[in-house]
Amino acid sequence: MKRFVPSSELVVRASRGEIPAISRLITRAEMGLDECRPALAEIYRKAGKAHVIGITGVPGSGKSTLVANLAAQLRRRNKKVAIIAVDPSSPYSGGSILGDRIRMTELASDPGVYIRSMATRGAVGGMARSTLDAVDILDVGGFDTIIIETVGVGQDEVEIAKASHTTVVVSAPGLGDEIQAIKAGMLEIADIHVVSKCDRSDSNKLVVDLKQMLTLGLASKDPKDWLPTVIGVSSYNGTGIDELATEIERHRAASLATGRAHQRELAIASFRLEKTAETLLIERFLKTLEPLRPALASTLCKRERDPYSAANELVSNALPQSIDQTEQAARAWTRRR
Amino acid sequence: MKRFVPSSELVVRASRGEIPAISRLITRAEMGLDECRPALAEIYRKAGKAHVIGITGVPGSGKSTLVANLAAQLRRRNKKVAIIAVDPSSPYSGGSILGDRIRMTELASDPGVYIRSMATRGAVGGMARSTLDAVDILDVGGFDTIIIETVGVGQDEVEIAKASHTTVVVSAPGLGDEIQAIKAGMLEIADIHVVSKCDRSDSNKLVVDLKQMLTLGLASKDPKDWLPTVIGVSSYNGTGIDELATEIERHRAASLATGRAHQRELAIASFRLEKTAETLLIERFLKTLEPLRPALASTLCKRERDPYSAANELVSNALPQSIDQTEQAARAWTRRR
Repeated sequence: MKRFVPSSELVVRASRGEIPAISRLITRAEMGLDECRPALAEIYRKAGKAHVIGITGVPGSGKSTLVANLAAQLRRRNKKVAIIAVDPSSPYSGGSILGDRIRMTELASDPGVYIRSMATRGAVGGMARSTLDAVDILDVGGFDTIIIETVGVGQDEVEIAKASHTTVVVSAPGLGDEIQAIKAGMLEIADIHVVSKCDRSDSNKLVVDLKQMLTLGLASKDPKDWLPTVIGVSSYNGTGIDELATEIERHRAASLATGRAHQRELAIASFRLEKTAETLLIERFLKTLEPLRPALASTLCKRERDPYSAANELVSNALPQSIDQTEQAARAWTRRR
Repeated sequence: MKRFVPSSELVVRASRGEIPAISRLITRAEMGLDECRPALAEIYRKAGKAHVIGITGVPGSGKSTLVANLAAQLRRRNKKVAIIAVDPSSPYSGGSILGDRIRMTELASDPGVYIRSMATRGAVGGMARSTLDAVDILDVGGFDTIIIETVGVGQDEVEIAKASHTTVVVSAPGLGDEIQAIKAGMLEIADIHVVSKCDRSDSNKLVVDLKQMLTLGLASKDPKDWLPTVIGVSSYNGTGIDELATEIERHRAASLATGRAHQRELAIASFRLEKTAETLLIERFLKTLEPLRPALASTLCKRERDPYSAANELVSNALPQSIDQTEQAARAWTRRR
């Protein structure tokens, strides 16, 4: 039987780049183990060096193949690359993820590449929180480029893709609705647009449409700002992958130069704090609720009471008119620092 | 310009079965408007008569067509039918939902049928909460059968399907993985299994596999319990729809007779309380967090502090060691009733 290695020890090993320790820490972060939290806190304070790339797109857009090809290209540029594939909290897509991973077998034998599927589900804010924990663990483990791949369905997934330094949105021709990115609320989060399957004759229209759409947004833009570009990519003949890798690097350099990178870091930190706090808040609240559930459910069932007033009373007791207190306390500690 | 009708007035009109009032109340529930909450509380206390059917299945399983056919069948049995299609908090599936709705045009002209797509996104627990609010509004509005259609991807969606009196899980042949329901954690929630597209020659294997799978679970079952059945359905030639409608009625009668229906109501009430409380809790918490965000994000950005300790401090201030207090207070009011 494997002995239980304390998370603090795993931090030491992960920091030396030991893959098994990295994997175990990510698993513990996913599970939301209490024991692991001080270790994740330590990891966070050590992290912050890697370039994090978010890649998202609707199902069928060819994201996973693109990610595999991009990773191979980044390897040629001597980057250590980690890929985090976020499974949208769905147990069933286990299958499709597995399929995607098979395309990545060439990469899998390269020690400079780490591939991980996240299968978090359940906990509120859990997926975002544990994905960003995984980013930090990999960062501390020595990966200099970390790709987060999420399916562009669902607000959480889109937000996770946005919580990166460079966000790539993938669209594909032939998925029925040509500009999928707009519907998904993904147009505004893209730093770089990729049109995949550009070996197909109908891909050109999509490139043109996207470019036109982006031009419409130009008027309101700060001229210093990064202008999103559109790159056609074909996994079939390899077109565009090199250009994409270069564009990603160009975006990183530009945002560091204009100070946009820092703004983005602030937004990521804020998102992260929110998701972590939500997790802790609901964890505690549910503990309080647990012993009361049967009696409360029974009262509701009889329709003697409604869920709003019951919830309101529970929450008011749990969160007393303490907004002022909380504010004062929290302001106090931000001042202390 | 339309005058703002107070939600309390909409309750009166919705109770008379006025469709515009029903629609507006559902929209307000979706938006989570404060003004609407007392009205929703009143609706809840009045509701509880309708038979709620949850229908779920992986994408491509033919759920929407099945729902349309089932609704038509229930109409022939003189039921007033409402259909709530839950869009998995994804803005982009607007498109596909629209497509599905087109198949429902025949139904749409029937005043005994109401069809509604829910497009809630964002708020924690929001989708489940507002879907169940919509169920009550339709119940009070005089619909005696309410179908909730959710895509079986994601835990929330599966939980919503489960929050019904009768849960139907749809599988289809040819989707790659034959027993999709198992992976999706949907096997155990099904009261009735439907295998759609049973005009296809490969559907029979799926029926047999599902039946076998269900037999494996028999040993551990209380003999009084409902045994899930498997029904082959074809939207192409109409096979099985009548049988499905009958089976749904049979399930309802059986669970009322064995007392399972009450157990299920308790579970739904408990789920509902939890989701409503989560919404209120996070709403309040985020208000507290808002003014502090910039300073906190900046401290995190410098990696001087980590999200866990920051969140923990915030949450501890917001939820003081009040677990005992909350428990006492909440117990007090359950005793009062």
